[in-house]
Amino acid sequence: MEQKTDIYLYVENICRAAKEASRAYGATSTAKKNALLCTMADQLMADVADILAANQRDLDAAEENGVPKAMMDRLKLDEKRLSGICDALREVAALPDPIGSGERTVRPNGLVIQHVRAPLGCVAIIYEARPNVTVDAAALCLKTGNAVVLRGGKEAVHSGTALVASMKKALVDNGFSPDLIGFIAQTDRAGANALMDMRRYVDVLMPRGGKGLIRAVVENARVPVIETGAGNCHLYVDETADLDMAVKVAVNAKCSRPSVCNAIETLLVHKAVAPAFLPMMAEAMAKWNVEYRCDEAACAILPSAKPASDEDWDTEYNDYILTVGVVDSIDAAIDHITRYTTGHSEAIVTRSIENANAFRARVDAAAVYVNASTRFTDGGEFGFGAEIGISTQKLHARGPMGLMALTTDKYLIDGDGQVR
Amino acid sequence: MEQKTDIYLYVENICRAAKEASRAYGATSTAKKNALLCTMADQLMADVADILAANQRDLDAAEENGVPKAMMDRLKLDEKRLSGICDALREVAALPDPIGSGERTVRPNGLVIQHVRAPLGCVAIIYEARPNVTVDAAALCLKTGNAVVLRGGKEAVHSGTALVASMKKALVDNGFSPDLIGFIAQTDRAGANALMDMRRYVDVLMPRGGKGLIRAVVENARVPVIETGAGNCHLYVDETADLDMAVKVAVNAKCSRPSVCNAIETLLVHKAVAPAFLPMMAEAMAKWNVEYRCDEAACAILPSAKPASDEDWDTEYNDYILTVGVVDSIDAAIDHITRYTTGHSEAIVTRSIENANAFRARVDAAAVYVNASTRFTDGGEFGFGAEIGISTQKLHARGPMGLMALTTDKYLIDGDGQVR
Repeated sequence: MEQKTDIYLYVENICRAAKEASRAYGATSTAKKNALLCTMADQLMADVADILAANQRDLDAAEENGVPKAMMDRLKLDEKRLSGICDALREVAALPDPIGSGERTVRPNGLVIQHVRAPLGCVAIIYEARPNVTVDAAALCLKTGNAVVLRGGKEAVHSGTALVASMKKALVDNGFSPDLIGFIAQTDRAGANALMDMRRYVDVLMPRGGKGLIRAVVENARVPVIETGAGNCHLYVDETADLDMAVKVAVNAKCSRPSVCNAIETLLVHKAVAPAFLPMMAEAMAKWNVEYRCDEAACAILPSAKPASDEDWDTEYNDYILTVGVVDSIDAAIDHITRYTTGHSEAIVTRSIENANAFRARVDAAAVYVNASTRFTDGGEFGFGAEIGISTQKLHARGPMGLMALTTDKYLIDGDGQVR
Repeated sequence: MEQKTDIYLYVENICRAAKEASRAYGATSTAKKNALLCTMADQLMADVADILAANQRDLDAAEENGVPKAMMDRLKLDEKRLSGICDALREVAALPDPIGSGERTVRPNGLVIQHVRAPLGCVAIIYEARPNVTVDAAALCLKTGNAVVLRGGKEAVHSGTALVASMKKALVDNGFSPDLIGFIAQTDRAGANALMDMRRYVDVLMPRGGKGLIRAVVENARVPVIETGAGNCHLYVDETADLDMAVKVAVNAKCSRPSVCNAIETLLVHKAVAPAFLPMMAEAMAKWNVEYRCDEAACAILPSAKPASDEDWDTEYNDYILTVGVVDSIDAAIDHITRYTTGHSEAIVTRSIENANAFRARVDAAAVYVNASTRFTDGGEFGFGAEIGISTQKLHARGPMGLMALTTDKYLIDGDGQVR
C-alpha cells in the first residue's frame, strides 16, 4: 500500500468528518434547515470586519502577484457585496425543499412504494477564487440535506477561511456539526488530487472552472463527477430569418457578456442572407471592436476579417472574438454544430417551422433555442431560483442545475409481510 | 501518440458507427420505434434455426471448457426461451415512450421553456454470457431512441452474433441503419478496455456482472458509467417485530433465490427477541441447509453456527450462507448497516412507527423496506415494465432502472427575439 501524504490525510480527515456529519443532518426538517441558513446570513454580517480584513489579505497578495484585473474584481468583497451574498442565502432559505417529496404508488400485492428525493450525502466542489461561491455552494448543499467540502482557488484562501469560520459558528449555534462544511485551505494541486480519490466519503465532485481543471478532474477522478461549464455555443441565422431579430440576438449572445459560458463563439449564416446580414451585424457590433475569424465566403463579405483556422472553430474564446461561417443549408449548419458543440446552448433564428423543428430534433445540446439568445441558459433565468452550475454532461443533470441536482432517488417500501 | 491496436480500432469503428446512426434515429416517432421492435421479434422467430445452431456451438464449447452448470443453464436457448425473449420485446414495444415528454413553463419575459426527455445517444453494455440480455438491452435502448453497443461474455459469442444479425435484418427492413446495434464479437479484455475509453462515441457504459468487472470499469473507464448490482443487503428484526412475519420475510429474502443481488446476506436481530426468533428462523430455513456465520451472541443461540470473520460481514455470498448478528438497539443495527451496506436494499421488520421512521431516514440505500422482503427490488416488481439493471450509485439513477434511466434532459426554448 502506498504511503499517504500529509496533504492526503488532511483532505481525508475533512471528507470523512463531512460524510459522517451528513448522516444525521440528512433527516433534518426543512424548517430547521431554513433557520440555519438565515442564521448563517446574520452571522456573516456580524463578522463583516473579520471577513473584509481576510479579503484584504487576499487582495494584497493578488496585487503583489500581478493577478489580472478581472480576477481581482471577482475576488474583491466589500460590505455591499457581502450583504448581497447574504441576501442570496436568505433567498435559498425561501426556496421549496425537494427532499422527501415524490410519488407514491400501490402495487397489486399491496406494497406501497414511495419514490422520494434524498440528499446525495457529501458534495465536493472545486472552484476558482470567488468568495461568493464559497457561501452559495454551502447554502445550496445545506438546503438539500448535504454536507459540503469546498476547495476554492488559492488567491481567495483567506477570504474562504473567514467565510467558512463564520458559517461554522452558525452551524454550532443551531446545534449542528461544524464538519458539515469542510474547507480545504491547502490549495496545492495535491489537495485537489486527494479530493478526487475520496470514493468512501465524497458522493459527487463538481469542478467549476477552466477547461484544464475540468479535464484533469474527468481524467483522474475516481469519485463520481458532474462536468460543468464548457460552452462552445453557436447561433445559426437561417435563410428565412427576420434579420433585425437575428442582429439583436447575435449582438446579445456575443457582446452582452463574452466571458461567460452561455455566450456564443461562432455565428453561422445561410448563404442566401449572408450578404445582407453580415454587414448589418458588423455595424451593430462595431462599438465592441469584435474580432471576426471567418471562412472564405464570410471573409469576402466582412473585409476586416481574418481567416479562421481549424482550431478557431473549436475554441471557447470568452472574449470579443467571433468565428463566422457561411453555410449552404440548415443541414450544413447542423453538421457543423454537431462537430464542434460542447452540448451547452445552441440557437437558430428562423421563420420556418420545418427548420425550427429540424434544429430542435437534431442538435444535441442541453439548451436549444429558437429565436432567442443563448444567454438565457442560467438557473435564475430558467426559474430555478438558484444554480450550483451548468452541467454539460448527459447523466444525472444536464443544463442549469438547481436544488434537484443535489438530490438522489430513494425508494421507501412499506408492506405487511409481503414476500416474493 | 500511442499506436492504436487492431482491437482498439475495431471497437472504435463499431462505436463511431453506432453514435453516428443514433443522431438520425433519436428523432424517430414512437410508432416507428414500436413497429421496429415488433419486426425484430418476428425476425428472431423466423431465424430460430440459425440462432439455436449458433447457441449449440456455444453450449458445446462451454461443455468442453467445463463451464459451471448454472452458467450453462443461463446460456442455453431453445424455441420456448426464444419465444419468451420475443414476447418481452413486444412488451417493451407496448410501454409508454418517455422521449419528448416533459414540462412546459412560460417565463415572465415570454420565453417558453420545455424541459423534455431526450435519448442519451449511444449506450454501451458489458454483460455476462446471457443471450436474453443481448435482446433485452437492445430493445430498451432502441425504444428510447438510443443506439446500443453490446459486449457480452465470451461463452455466448456465437449466440450473440446470431441474435444481433437477425435484429440487424429487422433494422434494415424498417429503413434504419444496421449500425444502431453494435456487437463486439472480440471478447478479449482488450475489447472491454477499448470500450471504456470511447469518450467521443459512448454516452454511458453500464457494466452488468460480477464485482471484479464492475470494479475494473469504475476504476478504469473514461466514459460515464452507471454501476449496477452490488447487493450486500441486510434484514433487521426489531424488538417489536411480529416474529412470524419476520421468519417469513427472512426465509424469502435469503432462500427464495440466493444468487440474485436483492437477496439478503446478513440478518441482524435485537437481543430481546433473538433467543425466541433465531431458533424459529433456523427451523424454517432447515430444508435449504443454510450455513450460519454468527457473532458471539448468535453463536450461543444457534449451536450449529460458525463464528463470522470480519470479512464475512462484508461479503455478498450469493449462496445459502447467512451472517447473523445480535444487536443491543436499532441504533447499533443502523450503524452496522451503514458500515457494510452497498446501498442496494435494506429491510426492517417492526411494529414501532418510531423505529420504522428512524430506519427509513437513516439507512442510506436505494430501497428501504418496512415489513417486506428485499426481493422486491426489481423493475418489474416496481411497475416499470422493464429493467436495464439496478443502479447502486447515487447519480443519474438509483435502484431499478426502467426506460427513464436511458434518457437525458433537453431544454427547448422558444422566443420571439428575446435578449438578456
